[in-house]
Amino acid sequence: MTQPHSSLIYILNGPNLNLLGNREPDIYGTVTLEDIEKSATLHAGKSGFGVDFRQSNHEGALVDWIQEAGEKAAGLIINAGALTHTSVALRDALAPLGIPVVEVHLSNIFARESFRHLSHISPAATGIISGFGANSYILGLDAITATVS
Amino acid sequence: MTQPHSSLIYILNGPNLNLLGNREPDIYGTVTLEDIEKSATLHAGKSGFGVDFRQSNHEGALVDWIQEAGEKAAGLIINAGALTHTSVALRDALAPLGIPVVEVHLSNIFARESFRHLSHISPAATGIISGFGANSYILGLDAITATVS
Amino acid sequence: MTQPHSSLIYILNGPNLNLLGNREPDIYGTVTLEDIEKSATLHAGKSGFGVDFRQSNHEGALVDWIQEAGEKAAGLIINAGALTHTSVALRDALAPLGIPVVEVHLSNIFARESFRHLSHISPAATGIISGFGANSYILGLDAITATVS
Amino acid sequence: MTQPHSSLIYILNGPNLNLLGNREPDIYGTVTLEDIEKSATLHAGKSGFGVDFRQSNHEGALVDWIQEAGEKAAGLIINAGALTHTSVALRDALAPLGIPVVEVHLSNIFARESFRHLSHISPAATGIISGFGANSYILGLDAITATVS
Amino acid sequence: MTQPHSSLIYILNGPNLNLLGNREPDIYGTVTLEDIEKSATLHAGKSGFGVDFRQSNHEGALVDWIQEAGEKAAGLIINAGALTHTSVALRDALAPLGIPVVEVHLSNIFARESFRHLSHISPAATGIISGFGANSYILGLDAITATVS
Amino acid sequence: MTQPHSSLIYILNGPNLNLLGNREPDIYGTVTLEDIEKSATLHAGKSGFGVDFRQSNHEGALVDWIQEAGEKAAGLIINAGALTHTSVALRDALAPLGIPVVEVHLSNIFARESFRHLSHISPAATGIISGFGANSYILGLDAITATVS
Amino acid sequence: MTQPHSSLIYILNGPNLNLLGNREPDIYGTVTLEDIEKSATLHAGKSGFGVDFRQSNHEGALVDWIQEAGEKAAGLIINAGALTHTSVALRDALAPLGIPVVEVHLSNIFARESFRHLSHISPAATGIISGFGANSYILGLDAITATVS
Amino acid sequence: MTQPHSSLIYILNGPNLNLLGNREPDIYGTVTLEDIEKSATLHAGKSGFGVDFRQSNHEGALVDWIQEAGEKAAGLIINAGALTHTSVALRDALAPLGIPVVEVHLSNIFARESFRHLSHISPAATGIISGFGANSYILGLDAITATVS
Amino acid sequence: MTQPHSSLIYILNGPNLNLLGNREPDIYGTVTLEDIEKSATLHAGKSGFGVDFRQSNHEGALVDWIQEAGEKAAGLIINAGALTHTSVALRDALAPLGIPVVEVHLSNIFARESFRHLSHISPAATGIISGFGANSYILGLDAITATVS
Amino acid sequence: MTQPHSSLIYILNGPNLNLLGNREPDIYGTVTLEDIEKSATLHAGKSGFGVDFRQSNHEGALVDWIQEAGEKAAGLIINAGALTHTSVALRDALAPLGIPVVEVHLSNIFARESFRHLSHISPAATGIISGFGANSYILGLDAITATVS
Amino acid sequence: MTQPHSSLIYILNGPNLNLLGNREPDIYGTVTLEDIEKSATLHAGKSGFGVDFRQSNHEGALVDWIQEAGEKAAGLIINAGALTHTSVALRDALAPLGIPVVEVHLSNIFARESFRHLSHISPAATGIISGFGANSYILGLDAITATVS
Amino acid sequence: MTQPHSSLIYILNGPNLNLLGNREPDIYGTVTLEDIEKSATLHAGKSGFGVDFRQSNHEGALVDWIQEAGEKAAGLIINAGALTHTSVALRDALAPLGIPVVEVHLSNIFARESFRHLSHISPAATGIISGFGANSYILGLDAITATVS
Repeated sequence: MTQPHSSLIYILNGPNLNLLGNREPDIYGTVTLEDIEKSATLHAGKSGFGVDFRQSNHEGALVDWIQEAGEKAAGLIINAGALTHTSVALRDALAPLGIPVVEVHLSNIFARESFRHLSHISPAATGIISGFGANSYILGLDAITATVS
Repeated sequence: MTQPHSSLIYILNGPNLNLLGNREPDIYGTVTLEDIEKSATLHAGKSGFGVDFRQSNHEGALVDWIQEAGEKAAGLIINAGALTHTSVALRDALAPLGIPVVEVHLSNIFARESFRHLSHISPAATGIISGFGANSYILGLDAITATVS
Repeated sequence: MTQPHSSLIYILNGPNLNLLGNREPDIYGTVTLEDIEKSATLHAGKSGFGVDFRQSNHEGALVDWIQEAGEKAAGLIINAGALTHTSVALRDALAPLGIPVVEVHLSNIFARESFRHLSHISPAATGIISGFGANSYILGLDAITATVS
Repeated sequence: MTQPHSSLIYILNGPNLNLLGNREPDIYGTVTLEDIEKSATLHAGKSGFGVDFRQSNHEGALVDWIQEAGEKAAGLIINAGALTHTSVALRDALAPLGIPVVEVHLSNIFARESFRHLSHISPAATGIISGFGANSYILGLDAITATVS
Repeated sequence: MTQPHSSLIYILNGPNLNLLGNREPDIYGTVTLEDIEKSATLHAGKSGFGVDFRQSNHEGALVDWIQEAGEKAAGLIINAGALTHTSVALRDALAPLGIPVVEVHLSNIFARESFRHLSHISPAATGIISGFGANSYILGLDAITATVS
Repeated sequence: MTQPHSSLIYILNGPNLNLLGNREPDIYGTVTLEDIEKSATLHAGKSGFGVDFRQSNHEGALVDWIQEAGEKAAGLIINAGALTHTSVALRDALAPLGIPVVEVHLSNIFARESFRHLSHISPAATGIISGFGANSYILGLDAITATVS
Repeated sequence: MTQPHSSLIYILNGPNLNLLGNREPDIYGTVTLEDIEKSATLHAGKSGFGVDFRQSNHEGALVDWIQEAGEKAAGLIINAGALTHTSVALRDALAPLGIPVVEVHLSNIFARESFRHLSHISPAATGIISGFGANSYILGLDAITATVS
Repeated sequence: MTQPHSSLIYILNGPNLNLLGNREPDIYGTVTLEDIEKSATLHAGKSGFGVDFRQSNHEGALVDWIQEAGEKAAGLIINAGALTHTSVALRDALAPLGIPVVEVHLSNIFARESFRHLSHISPAATGIISGFGANSYILGLDAITATVS
Repeated sequence: MTQPHSSLIYILNGPNLNLLGNREPDIYGTVTLEDIEKSATLHAGKSGFGVDFRQSNHEGALVDWIQEAGEKAAGLIINAGALTHTSVALRDALAPLGIPVVEVHLSNIFARESFRHLSHISPAATGIISGFGANSYILGLDAITATVS
Repeated sequence: MTQPHSSLIYILNGPNLNLLGNREPDIYGTVTLEDIEKSATLHAGKSGFGVDFRQSNHEGALVDWIQEAGEKAAGLIINAGALTHTSVALRDALAPLGIPVVEVHLSNIFARESFRHLSHISPAATGIISGFGANSYILGLDAITATVS
Repeated sequence: MTQPHSSLIYILNGPNLNLLGNREPDIYGTVTLEDIEKSATLHAGKSGFGVDFRQSNHEGALVDWIQEAGEKAAGLIINAGALTHTSVALRDALAPLGIPVVEVHLSNIFARESFRHLSHISPAATGIISGFGANSYILGLDAITATVS
Repeated sequence: MTQPHSSLIYILNGPNLNLLGNREPDIYGTVTLEDIEKSATLHAGKSGFGVDFRQSNHEGALVDWIQEAGEKAAGLIINAGALTHTSVALRDALAPLGIPVVEVHLSNIFARESFRHLSHISPAATGIISGFGANSYILGLDAITATVS
């Protein structure tokens, strides 16, 4: 177990996730990103961790935040949305971080279209959690706190 | 025929289209993006529609605008430029819109290099119009007004 | 703008389109090919053009007609149906025509099975209009008349 | 069990099958297409069905006959010969028929050259029978009569 | 016609087929494997043949049985289930048998997911019958008895 | 939330996992499968669930157990080892289960050789958890109990 | 040297070749198909052979003629045009002929687009002559007369 | 040279090899697996080694035996038969063994069908010997004894 | 030699290069981007050129700057980082520039993972220099000044 | 018709052709390379041309000779043997020659193994003649003399 | 057993093998090609065979020697080095030899980079021995003497 | 900085480069290989290095010279011409050299035909410089002298 250099966990969300709960409820349900932020903050607090929860439609902003997490956070959870499948820049930002990185997805990406089966991010992540809806984030927090506590 | 919830049509343009008319005139002619905006505004006006015409080199900005169009526009025309071939994020933004979406291209993309034959956006579009120069936008407006009027 | 050497537009339809309106109405609607011929003739007439509207299940017949169009027509609209994906002969007939050629499809072929994404005809067409139902033909007429008028 | 709207079964044969029995007897044996027509007519008669047995080297003619079968036949057996591997038009003609369609082959196409392993027709067929020589047609008749009786 | 060295036909079934009739009835119907065994035994009896009907979830057991069939049976029907697509061992066991081998499938495997289109077994089979539900087995029996009688 | 029809969770392990802790400790660490069984039993007990923990090198045995789980278990966790990448039979056994299925892996399979990136099982799983060592099983239990409680 | 069963050589031409000399003269020159027929007839006459020279845009007609050649001709020259790359039916018609078959092309097909590099016909031909303009036909006649004389 | 921790060499044989000598003698000759066992035992005895010679049609049994060899044997020879091309489980069992592993084949697999050119086992083997009939086993024994003596 | 319309050279750097010298020193060394900027400015100064040196994690910002360079710079050096492999937008921005463009990389990208072997930018560059660490920039400056001086 | 700058035709032969007539007579016949040289010299003499006939197993020697032919010959015939399929150097030597180049093959390479279907040389040749045995060389001479006379 | 027409075995070595023992000793060890020649000569002598041992960096020289071996040698061992993966000329030289040919490799080529997995030579070899260091040559000699003695 | 064991730099050129300046001047300009040798010698002399400049059309000769350079040179520049894309032997000769190796190309190979995009040599080079005409050699010299001085 490494000593965490912070008690803060970054949770970053990529393009279109700000609309969660408003679109395609038969796939994603009615839970909004704000609901997930609240649950995650509450759950992390039980283990003594704070949460910095952000969303952006811009790849560049996500790269900025990942670099920032490398200096300030004990761990990182990322749901990169569609950028999961197209961004090598996110991968290169994640690879040298030195803190636990968990890639999460709401739905099981392997049960969807084939172009969503490839993740550029997975090789740079500590682990992947995919398919449990909002609970994917909660399991991701447990995976990180088990590692850094 | 669905009832339009707005009389505004968004026309969004992706990377490098701001230079239209200044570069490679043998492929694209000398018409500028401003010229297209004027023709489109005039043509839409005849059917009682307004046009909100924008361009950005940033994928994230285009995603923001598509989401905005979902709330404010009666239809959307998009020429995503090079992002047509690389952006799943644009596709995911377009898919749940609920308004007519027309993908347009100035040139016939299937008569150019093979890596331009794949469009990530097409499956999320109502229709595609490609190869008629600036007239592609006018035909796109006709396609939308025929649907929402 | 080139001077049209005729005021006639050929509209050619490939295999199985004669059954339009009778089969799979959830995909193609209830409009028949005769309905489309009437609308197209009416619409072209407004711009002073006549329409020669034909259908065949035979690739060879379509090649014959395309060659004939090269001598008699001001423009050509073609919905090659399933031959779109398998016929190089149609492509070679279209390529040297010297008049505007518009490839049309009723449905968005990019949102269907992947083997329908490849069109042998597209590289030999002036432009493509796909996904607007019977209106694809009307938009195709507008595209031609805008070019040759 | 659907009610058959006819007591006629169409049996259609594609290119080069008219030469059956005259060429490559080590692969196809010495049975001719006429022999098969006789056996099939006899066998179908036992179940009270008539047979309309045809052959053409023209893809377009086969499409015409398939469309005709949709109106007049209780079931359809097709041995498309080489068109099996190249014709999407046959597939599109077969898909909406609404009567049982059995794809038959004299030889086991999966034990021959690899370009014969792909059948465009199979996804549009009710079932496939391949490899039993002329008996493939008899088994195909049994498969249809078991369904429509 | 070869002289059958036995009046017994082996019918072998692969993984998960023991659950037939209990799962996914919209694809496979409500007929159970026991029902099929009864129909097949009855049908074969009319032609003077007995049936040895077995099922296993183990590839190795199926290889054992195929080898046994080579010594005891007049013909072999095999529905290898999912092993159809992954097992070269079954193919190698079937190839040298010296008795008629019919590969059967309940559903039309070519109308399902693409990874089910490849059959390792087909090149080693005398013929294939696919897509007629439980009747595929009956047609398979007819195909064998027509050969060995 | 569905009502669990049992308070038992099956945890199934595939080929070579019985040697865990004895081989390649630089990849898998020194934890044995017995250690994981103890932790999992203890952790599930806190939520009132029992654990049935098994390992086999035989694909057929795993198929048998998955079918058994469909009748007796509230949820299923599976680490199929190398069969993850080659077995369609496991997938077909998992697909119709009707209880939550979690695919787990000790290491991040996406950071290893490319032939390990394909999982035949993922499309039939509720979700995937990969890369957290023995903790992958604990997170898998939490994912199931969150669903069925 | 086999004894020719006829002193007639069939020369068959596929789709669009009837327009030769009228289109794309920078690729094909200004020689027409009639010019080729005359030269070929003259040249064959010197060796005591007659020529039956035909063209069709219909695949089925070409298949009919190839079958006819099998009965009446001493040799066959075929320029299948675009059907070279898509027709398995022509190949199956040519394969069992039993007379010399020479595939000819005006241009060097290997120096053009890559989809023209594949010829379905070549494996069924005795030899190929490609790239010498109208002279390809003359060389093809020499190749046949050298074999059958 | 490592010190052998045993004087026993395991020789494992996969599916269908028990029929050796009875089938396809034109490919494999008339030597049986028992003949090979005798020659191998005799040959190894000359170098002071014993042989444990086994065959199974079950992948799982082979995995069990490989694991056992890791504890009891000085070296391992494996002819995995058809599992060579499909089993990642065998590879994972072989990779961490820590004793010399020789993959042998009776025939030259690279001169047979292309799907037999891929071996999942080769990357986990010390060396490969292929194409010398029964002598492949003898050469394999020499390769092992040269290493461990 | 063209006459330079400016004495300024743009040097643009893509995602994650701002962290150079802080991460993975075994691959990239300990030189920072600031160090490179200083060396480049000094080196260009000797030839009478100024340097405008920038970095961004945003693809859109890089496109903006490339367009700006087209108006203000005598030459452009670009190290696009991970966007090298995914961005068609950068390529389209570079293609029409009309000034020398040198693509540089610190490491030899052809000796790294295969997905880094594809560069979308190379076809739009005048030349490529890859593998000389910070010296790649200096050699790139020499290449430009040799052309435009 | 260009004016020939020489009355000499080079005929170059690649690896293993020196053994012609001694090996695999069922494929290549019993004609030797010396026989071909004699026939070619005799045939060319009738048109007033001389022949320089050479063979080498060395790619470099063939490149040397092709360059030499560029200076001394009126035309070039090349049978590159196995180098046809692997040598880009031969292609680059042939491409800029400026004299007619005919690629010849004794057998029909498209009826042999698939790796022999690709010719690196064809795009740099004026034309290809394949499949007529030694007569391929004679036809090649006719093709050249028709061009340069 | 064929009667050897010579008591000489050719051992041919391809490019760069002359440097063996001087480079990359962690892969190839410190044994030189001279050491191998000595061991091989000694070992062959015990069975009454002589050895002709050669090395060249020239593909053409290797082809010459293979042809020579066809006339003078009882068997041939070849380690073609890098030419293994690129030379069809070596394959064509080996294929018709009529004496046993053993392809040897020092290292296990299937455990190295993927482009080394393809051997053009294997289909023309009697057998393959790969991965036993210098001992691969000794085993190769045994394989030949077992065949020709 | 390593201490150079020589003050000599080898510059090796592959097939057809001896014709530089005489062929295809629109691609390569009018500079000859002799011109490049002079410029390179002059430029290297300024840094106190000598140049050994050679060209051959033979792959084997280039391998010989690379091996020689490993003993005598401080650095190596190689323009392998067409062998860049086909020779693994050159790669294996370069890989263990232990001196800086720079791969140079006159033109930007990534802007030419796709089969020229693959370089077998790049992974064995220190760096690549491509697209600056004769200046590529000068920049290559600078890259080496910066490393070894």
